Amino acid sequence: MKQFLLTLTFDGSAFHGWQVQPNALTVQEALQDAIERILGVRESVTGCSRTDSGVHADNFYCTVRTEKVISAQKLKMGLNAVLPPEIAVKEVKKVPLEFHPRYDAKAKEYRYLIFNKDYKQPFYVNRALFYPWKLDAKFLNEQAKAYLGTHDFSAFCAAKSDKEDKTRTIYRADVLENGDFIEFHVCGDGFLYNMVRIMVGTLLDIQKGNLEKDSIPAILESRDRKNAGQTALPDGLYLHRVFYDAEEVRLLDER
Amino acid sequence: MKQFLLTLTFDGSAFHGWQVQPNALTVQEALQDAIERILGVRESVTGCSRTDSGVHADNFYCTVRTEKVISAQKLKMGLNAVLPPEIAVKEVKKVPLEFHPRYDAKAKEYRYLIFNKDYKQPFYVNRALFYPWKLDAKFLNEQAKAYLGTHDFSAFCAAKSDKEDKTRTIYRADVLENGDFIEFHVCGDGFLYNMVRIMVGTLLDIQKGNLEKDSIPAILESRDRKNAGQTALPDGLYLHRVFYDAEEVRLLDER
Repeated sequence: MKQFLLTLTFDGSAFHGWQVQPNALTVQEALQDAIERILGVRESVTGCSRTDSGVHADNFYCTVRTEKVISAQKLKMGLNAVLPPEIAVKEVKKVPLEFHPRYDAKAKEYRYLIFNKDYKQPFYVNRALFYPWKLDAKFLNEQAKAYLGTHDFSAFCAAKSDKEDKTRTIYRADVLENGDFIEFHVCGDGFLYNMVRIMVGTLLDIQKGNLEKDSIPAILESRDRKNAGQTALPDGLYLHRVFYDAEEVRLLDER
Repeated sequence: MKQFLLTLTFDGSAFHGWQVQPNALTVQEALQDAIERILGVRESVTGCSRTDSGVHADNFYCTVRTEKVISAQKLKMGLNAVLPPEIAVKEVKKVPLEFHPRYDAKAKEYRYLIFNKDYKQPFYVNRALFYPWKLDAKFLNEQAKAYLGTHDFSAFCAAKSDKEDKTRTIYRADVLENGDFIEFHVCGDGFLYNMVRIMVGTLLDIQKGNLEKDSIPAILESRDRKNAGQTALPDGLYLHRVFYDAEEVRLLDER
């Protein structure tokens, strides 16, 4: 038995998220179908994270275990030959069986992309939030700093989440201007259900005047979802990377 | 009678080029349909350039003349509300009736985008050339300099072109590396049928060893299409901008 770590990138607009579910096409299922075509057996795949329907990935990590004899490079090329065009395998590495892509994740980084012009960008349909009202990246960047550090994020969690401990630590929260786009980068030790999308929606509601300037600390303190802003559409959300610890990264580099 | 200049951006993969033709959806036809919905009459539209099937535009310029009373801003908003998602109107300006978007073009700039990794980029399906063999941007940039200046480009023109004078002047020919992408930027006073795609295909064939290093001057000299490289796919080609002269640019800024 050996284990491979796959780095994927995918356009999530074609899928109902990562996780296999009945009567809906998911990235996990499409990948398992491709693996079955290449290896001749249906192996299960473990992902680094659930992702919502419509959410994209620059880098999504998952593992697959198999008894079959195949090299990392051949697995990569075979999968890329049969996967649908919305999913690509960027890298395949052999990793120790002990490695787990979700439990061993030390931090995750997401980016949220906003196209901030008064027309819709044809090349970013379903791939960015179309937001026609002028945003002030410098102001939003200042507001976003209130997310940094360790907080109870109950106010930034969809009501249906059943996770008990809602304390998370945010290491990075930056709003950047990039041409006609505004991008929100957030890195933390973990994220609750819809958390990044509510963080973005709250920033947009502050810019719009629906929520008060500098109100994020009080919203966090309240632990009440009703006080935060809207849940921004999934269109602009990309899982950007997952951080594993230094020793694991060294192990991951062994082929 | 007044004339508006529209700046469009479009994803060409959904269209059979710009120009209206029977039994095929074109950008011009989609735009004329949208104009008819907004103005209530079918006005003809004049483009800055023909574009091949599948070719994209960062900035495509066209004019529409009408007797109808409407402001530039209202025309823009109305069109963006009814156009298909693959086409957007970035700007609308009122311009003098004398202005012609094709005859008054002093220069055009195209960019050609190549994704240079061994997997296909899900976000650039039909929007970049997928080229898995490693390209050397510095080497290609040196080779591309042979395109600069005034030459007879007969060797870089599809056989079916019927233009008599095939002399064109190239002002810019740069190959740049941008992350996992290689981009070719070319600006000239005009381009023959398939010319940019053959310029790119020739560079790729030189990199691959199918054509000799430093052979572009001899290929130009031969004026024979057979000596140049392949015609690169339309997927990576974008009309990037059109230059009009200073006085016209000033006029264009009058609303």
